Amino acid sequence: MTDLLLATRNPAKLVELRRLLDAADVEGIRVLGLTDVAEFPEEPETGATFAENALAKARDAAKATGLAAVADDSGLTVDALAGMPGVLSARWSGRHGDDRANLELVLAQVADVPDERRGAAFVCAAALVVPGGDEVVVHGRWAGNLARAARGTNGFGYDPAFVPEGEHRTSAELAPQEKDALSHRGRAMRALLPYLRGLASS
Amino acid sequence: MTDLLLATRNPAKLVELRRLLDAADVEGIRVLGLTDVAEFPEEPETGATFAENALAKARDAAKATGLAAVADDSGLTVDALAGMPGVLSARWSGRHGDDRANLELVLAQVADVPDERRGAAFVCAAALVVPGGDEVVVHGRWAGNLARAARGTNGFGYDPAFVPEGEHRTSAELAPQEKDALSHRGRAMRALLPYLRGLASS
Repeated sequence: MTDLLLATRNPAKLVELRRLLDAADVEGIRVLGLTDVAEFPEEPETGATFAENALAKARDAAKATGLAAVADDSGLTVDALAGMPGVLSARWSGRHGDDRANLELVLAQVADVPDERRGAAFVCAAALVVPGGDEVVVHGRWAGNLARAARGTNGFGYDPAFVPEGEHRTSAELAPQEKDALSHRGRAMRALLPYLRGLASS
Repeated sequence: MTDLLLATRNPAKLVELRRLLDAADVEGIRVLGLTDVAEFPEEPETGATFAENALAKARDAAKATGLAAVADDSGLTVDALAGMPGVLSARWSGRHGDDRANLELVLAQVADVPDERRGAAFVCAAALVVPGGDEVVVHGRWAGNLARAARGTNGFGYDPAFVPEGEHRTSAELAPQEKDALSHRGRAMRALLPYLRGLASS
């Protein structure tokens, strides 16, 4: 059995990552959270890209624990904001992790932007770092549009503000399994599966 | 004598535009503000570019008054924000025209961004619309970096957060004449002068 550490301090993200890995049912992998291992300090996210931040978090976790580690960095890219909040999604309002303030700010910033320019996408970079071994970063993207107002209570982050392509519901109005099948994080984690299977069999 | 309407409802911007035109001393032009003419409704700024917004404002003013009109649209472009706040500069915090909230939000968003990625520029598009005549849009750009904290009381908008290239002071710490010689708005207005002289002599 190979231990795999999910290196996130965001409880809602941990729930999603665990759910995605449970659904994939990779044989020979035992999934651990940060509460299962010794504490180590959290570094600020200063990368210019999701990939840099995901890789830095996975490296820090792998180095501190000696375990294979998966980390993700993700966010919302808004066309009318030139792709921002992007890597600053979690602190867009100036207050790190205040999901409600962050999404209300985005909606206020684009309040006058007409429907045809309200495109947005969730993007996730997921990194796997194996101590003394491989490093890999994969991406998942989920295209859609900004809602006019927040709706729904599932998920976290910007979910209540995002209407996926082909949907009228926001991603916070989708059931967890519906979200996982389409979401940026679901796509990225599924892209990691071949590497996780390789890890389990090595 | 040809009347030229400065089509701005921002008092601090009006002061700068008047000062720049006074310094240029274009013969045969009398400069009017919106308080000198009949009121007309303000349209929301929904353009994707500074040029679109400046042109729309100048067109609206020229159409409503029958006068030649100059309007500008300007803002701060921050490298680490992919060029935003950009056209959303005046409403970045979600509250239109709250200069302090807008600049404090930008500084909070990039608080963890290292010095080498703190580049920024002020950009101004200035439009001249002559009823039944020419339309022209010119641009001015002022390159620099974001300060770590707001400093200075001159100017307006993001001036306290912006350190021009070659300066240690913020643009809110420059004397008005120093700012005018370098600023995005100064450059744009000087680029308009040949057209204003043409207007005066036509």
